[in-house]
Amino acid sequence: MSQQVTRVSLRDVQRPVAGELEQVVLELRRVIAADFPSVSEVNDHLLQMKGKLFRPTLLLLSHQAAGSKDPRAVTLAAVVELIHLATLVHDDSVDHSVLRRGLPTINALFSHQIAVIMGDYLYSRAIIELVRLDDHEALRVLARVTNEMTVGEMRQLEAHDKLAYGEGAYDALIRAKTASLLSGACEVGALTAPANFRQALARFGMLLGMAFQITDDLLDYTEPEAVTGKPSGLDLREHKVTLPLIAALARMPAEGRTVVAELMDAAEPGDDLVAEVIRLVEGAGGLGTARQRALDLAQQAEAELDVLPASPARDALQGSIAYAVERRS
Amino acid sequence: MSQQVTRVSLRDVQRPVAGELEQVVLELRRVIAADFPSVSEVNDHLLQMKGKLFRPTLLLLSHQAAGSKDPRAVTLAAVVELIHLATLVHDDSVDHSVLRRGLPTINALFSHQIAVIMGDYLYSRAIIELVRLDDHEALRVLARVTNEMTVGEMRQLEAHDKLAYGEGAYDALIRAKTASLLSGACEVGALTAPANFRQALARFGMLLGMAFQITDDLLDYTEPEAVTGKPSGLDLREHKVTLPLIAALARMPAEGRTVVAELMDAAEPGDDLVAEVIRLVEGAGGLGTARQRALDLAQQAEAELDVLPASPARDALQGSIAYAVERRS
Repeated sequence: MSQQVTRVSLRDVQRPVAGELEQVVLELRRVIAADFPSVSEVNDHLLQMKGKLFRPTLLLLSHQAAGSKDPRAVTLAAVVELIHLATLVHDDSVDHSVLRRGLPTINALFSHQIAVIMGDYLYSRAIIELVRLDDHEALRVLARVTNEMTVGEMRQLEAHDKLAYGEGAYDALIRAKTASLLSGACEVGALTAPANFRQALARFGMLLGMAFQITDDLLDYTEPEAVTGKPSGLDLREHKVTLPLIAALARMPAEGRTVVAELMDAAEPGDDLVAEVIRLVEGAGGLGTARQRALDLAQQAEAELDVLPASPARDALQGSIAYAVERRS
Repeated sequence: MSQQVTRVSLRDVQRPVAGELEQVVLELRRVIAADFPSVSEVNDHLLQMKGKLFRPTLLLLSHQAAGSKDPRAVTLAAVVELIHLATLVHDDSVDHSVLRRGLPTINALFSHQIAVIMGDYLYSRAIIELVRLDDHEALRVLARVTNEMTVGEMRQLEAHDKLAYGEGAYDALIRAKTASLLSGACEVGALTAPANFRQALARFGMLLGMAFQITDDLLDYTEPEAVTGKPSGLDLREHKVTLPLIAALARMPAEGRTVVAELMDAAEPGDDLVAEVIRLVEGAGGLGTARQRALDLAQQAEAELDVLPASPARDALQGSIAYAVERRS
């Protein structure tokens, strides 16, 4: 993959599975349906918040690209989105976030209590559905992934010494927090395919997921709130150390490190301080290094697709890499 | 079952499965083990908090009483306790409880965030273990139960009009919140037994669980803090409407209802007001009615055991009923 990647819209990526994605939304609605009014009320809000269905897209494209024809694929795609949704509901609650995809979060609109309980509700519904499908392997992959995501969340809370947080710890974090579910989605899509397709797609999803998260962490430095829907520099405000900062700190002069330390010590760092650290990170080449790492991972992800026969779905998976690293929000 | 039930110690109930219960603790430790330090730290605290293992006891007694010899029983018992533990961690977080079994809760000792994440960690570990055991039926039962418990928690948050909260809603609440897991424990213990044993034990667990929860709700009215480990009248302070109050309200004169309404309107009702409502509930026969309901359910539970052959395990299950309705903490 060259350094100049053509921007690919998610719509293009989703084209080979557009019809199935419509069914995914219906399946999602069916799987979470409740006969208790206050649960239904939260569900209605969640369905409005429904995102871009990137994980179901990857599952269905992997399924198609691997030549599988499992009638359960649409439901599995809905379950993967449901697990993602359950995670978001708990994450927003843990992070006290108030907005998600332009809508109030469950904790903001209802309450913290309801967010915790409804996250559990959604996750247990996903398990019930997997048991109903009698898909032991999908259950095995997704239970492992869900557990990895919780360890990723614990990793995120750790990091006592912010300035010593290294690339190894960051890699472990983004694998667990983000890439594991993208990898699981790709792998589950190819469970009935030959083992070499399944393994290649699992690795593809992991590499793609890491590139996706690094890009996310870069957007926090580069894009204004109007584009991403969240304040620029939010990670820094919340003292989250991501790759741009890690890469920059390795080359930053002592004065710069002192400013970063000041930000990490401030309970609520001011706009000027955040802006200064962003400039320092850029000046020390942190953005460029992180960008290069995302592109390297993208290239490795692309190589994993070589084992698959040529098809519109394989092209779309290739397009999903460009989408992941070139998106602006 | 007569009105005068002999008090039975939990130790007596546990005797036929005492050896297996020791293994349950080891299995629990194995299943939740983590190679990430901050997860291990929380795990160590959770293992100290380990309760009376009432649910594993029921599973193992059901297993033995139904004549089963499934080598997975000990691990299944550990998984049931693990699901219970995950629920407690989230419940304490949702309720902002600071003490559980005489030890600080996870939310109090670590943080609210860690409690939410670690509840998810424990639950996903339980699922991983069930998948590893390849016990599809156990997974089916326990996934359904876990989902029912979340709906029970949502029911608990509901109840806008406290004085109109009726026995039907209360029944649905205690079934979902408490009895479903006791029923699931008994049923999972008997999964490899004949269908009539399995079904009878599932019903037994449901009836026992309802009697257990009503007794719990009664203890909140009758026992001092020194005995139960939580302040007397805590449910009233938290505006939780339970059977003693529901039963009393049905017969309470208008003046009494006004006092109850006053308590429900007070953000933090004072000790005097709580004590007055407790007296009103007792005076209107609320405690007696609730006690009678628990005993009726206990009798129905006992009748379900008739289908099982006589054995020390069956006697112990009978003893567990007496334990459930006669305990003081």
